Amino acid sequence: MPRKRLMTPGPTEVPEAALQAMGRQVTHHRTPQFRALLAEVLEGLKHVLRTDNDVVLLASSGTGGMEAAVTNLVPRGGKALVLESGVFSRRWSDICRRYGIDVHTVAVPWGQAIQTKAVEQALRAHPDAVAVFGTLMESSTGTGHDIEAIGSVVGASDALFVVDGISGAGAMRCLTDAWHVDVLVVGSQKALMVPPGLAVLSVSAAAWRQMDRIQPQAFYFDLKLHRAKLAGPDTPWTPAHTLIAGLAESLRLIRAEGIENVWQRCERLAEMTRAGVVAMGLEVFSDRSAAGMTAVRVPAGIDAGQLLSRLEQRFGVKLASGQLELKGKIFRIAHFGLLDELDIIATLAAIELVLDELRHPVKLGAAAAAASLALRESERTLHVATS
Amino acid sequence: MPRKRLMTPGPTEVPEAALQAMGRQVTHHRTPQFRALLAEVLEGLKHVLRTDNDVVLLASSGTGGMEAAVTNLVPRGGKALVLESGVFSRRWSDICRRYGIDVHTVAVPWGQAIQTKAVEQALRAHPDAVAVFGTLMESSTGTGHDIEAIGSVVGASDALFVVDGISGAGAMRCLTDAWHVDVLVVGSQKALMVPPGLAVLSVSAAAWRQMDRIQPQAFYFDLKLHRAKLAGPDTPWTPAHTLIAGLAESLRLIRAEGIENVWQRCERLAEMTRAGVVAMGLEVFSDRSAAGMTAVRVPAGIDAGQLLSRLEQRFGVKLASGQLELKGKIFRIAHFGLLDELDIIATLAAIELVLDELRHPVKLGAAAAAASLALRESERTLHVATS
Repeated sequence: MPRKRLMTPGPTEVPEAALQAMGRQVTHHRTPQFRALLAEVLEGLKHVLRTDNDVVLLASSGTGGMEAAVTNLVPRGGKALVLESGVFSRRWSDICRRYGIDVHTVAVPWGQAIQTKAVEQALRAHPDAVAVFGTLMESSTGTGHDIEAIGSVVGASDALFVVDGISGAGAMRCLTDAWHVDVLVVGSQKALMVPPGLAVLSVSAAAWRQMDRIQPQAFYFDLKLHRAKLAGPDTPWTPAHTLIAGLAESLRLIRAEGIENVWQRCERLAEMTRAGVVAMGLEVFSDRSAAGMTAVRVPAGIDAGQLLSRLEQRFGVKLASGQLELKGKIFRIAHFGLLDELDIIATLAAIELVLDELRHPVKLGAAAAAASLALRESERTLHVATS
Repeated sequence: MPRKRLMTPGPTEVPEAALQAMGRQVTHHRTPQFRALLAEVLEGLKHVLRTDNDVVLLASSGTGGMEAAVTNLVPRGGKALVLESGVFSRRWSDICRRYGIDVHTVAVPWGQAIQTKAVEQALRAHPDAVAVFGTLMESSTGTGHDIEAIGSVVGASDALFVVDGISGAGAMRCLTDAWHVDVLVVGSQKALMVPPGLAVLSVSAAAWRQMDRIQPQAFYFDLKLHRAKLAGPDTPWTPAHTLIAGLAESLRLIRAEGIENVWQRCERLAEMTRAGVVAMGLEVFSDRSAAGMTAVRVPAGIDAGQLLSRLEQRFGVKLASGQLELKGKIFRIAHFGLLDELDIIATLAAIELVLDELRHPVKLGAAAAAASLALRESERTLHVATS
């Protein structure tokens, strides 16, 4: 069995300290000890998400967090703008429609990024939109969005800005408050480096005001019930407290590195990955490729399933396949969490070796060379910037 | 620091094997390996819950599981009968009302059990009730319900029978299918002995038929989206897969003991606890005390908070306090999960010693003696029954 290398956009490898915390005997969650732990975690999340807003933790997957944002903010019959660029941003529309919300979309072909101008136009056409639902990193296409620019447009309107940062936050630069993001939704099993089962939401004062105006349909996901417990801090329902104990450890590591440095590392890994992909003669799929992951077009004549299963069999490298319409057309390499430069060079070399095995023309070593050059280049830039 | 003894009705102590499973490095959840694990867990749950119905796993607390049952079964304006006997059964009413359901209650004073006759009368008065929502073990009062008798009455009506078994299932005898329970909701952190974060629902064919007739409001908790993935088996949203890996270990232990033996052990511990409580001159709170836990009236002149905090400080024994109206009036001793006979004797001795310290009149050793006698009696009965 080859050594396992998890290069998927969630779940990601979990740090040893977090694993150990989750392997400890459970304690009760209605105690001063748990409240202290929760307070530390909420504080750490505020640091990582660059927010002074309230942060709420839910025991659910990221999708539950998205639903919480929808049902607490937009009443039945209310209007929502959804920025659709792939599988996950489309989920905003699915959830909104389920709640009888009047959905208008700004859509782009998958692999492209939403243009800020298009959002501006849509907001002019729909000045009564209650909220704009966007996506930091559309992980189905590897697209990173310019949330700063879109946020400045939404911030100038009456609409609230809700961003799915499930896989992007903690991997891509995201200044939640400065960029006018009213609600940011994050999942635990991505850049936060804990197993799935927690959703995190940051909630602005404006978002709370809107929540005070409406009664959400959902009960478990009623964020006002969570707000009522934040002073403790505590939770209205039993929290997934072993995952929270793991999160405390991961957040300590992120804070020790510094979130700015984490973002920079992800950007560097992204540059290295793109350089390596191009050196192999492959094509990056997205026109605005994300710092957190790179989607790559499967070259003609190569079976994507065969490529990915050989990578896993021969080298233990687990990449993600394309989803729905993109199945067989792309594969996806994540570069966030615990991953570092050598993981990227190794992964690129593995892809090259398997392509060679599958008789796709490659020059062995070209990807590693290009990635190494990109690394040296980024270190030079960094050196110049800091000297 | 004294050795910790968690005697609360959730979370319960987690077996070593489950802790180790949850402390292992994460793997991806869209793999044949995870599907095999999930299949084993669903099979194990069917054994423990005594059901051949489909079983669905949600990443949420038990309250999320209750909400899933409500929103998938009863349409807005539909009628529901709720059997209210405490904090948790009242939650059924809160969730139903949130969804615009016409709630009718069969209520008893807290500490009493719902009478089957009252359910029969209510069903005659409301033959159009879509569902009856009951509770196996009302853990706020320590009351165990006669779900067999209530189920035979509901089974003879057109209504579906939905039971909150969050803390009761796996601790109290519950023959889900034989007792006409259409949906049983269970939480992970109780008798299933894993940390919080998973809800389990068993769903009968009749319940699925009703779900096919209506569109639930919820998206994350839409059980039809889960049913569509059961053939894999798989999940529509990212599962809390480390908790599922822990659950696999706990289920192995339960199956090795045999669920009938687990129930019998809990009943024996309950008898011992009641005998010890009475021997201390205290009073069992519920008129139908549950096999899974015992609620005890706080004796006059004793401050409940002081009693519980001294138990924790001096002996590491963590009991649960009363909730809402029962705060200060009762304390609660759980006896399910990993707990055994000596844990009960030790806990009773600790209560006695702390009462003595607080100058409440007790005869040291009386509780341990009574519990030991109850144990010997139960072993004799067992010996007669099996010889």
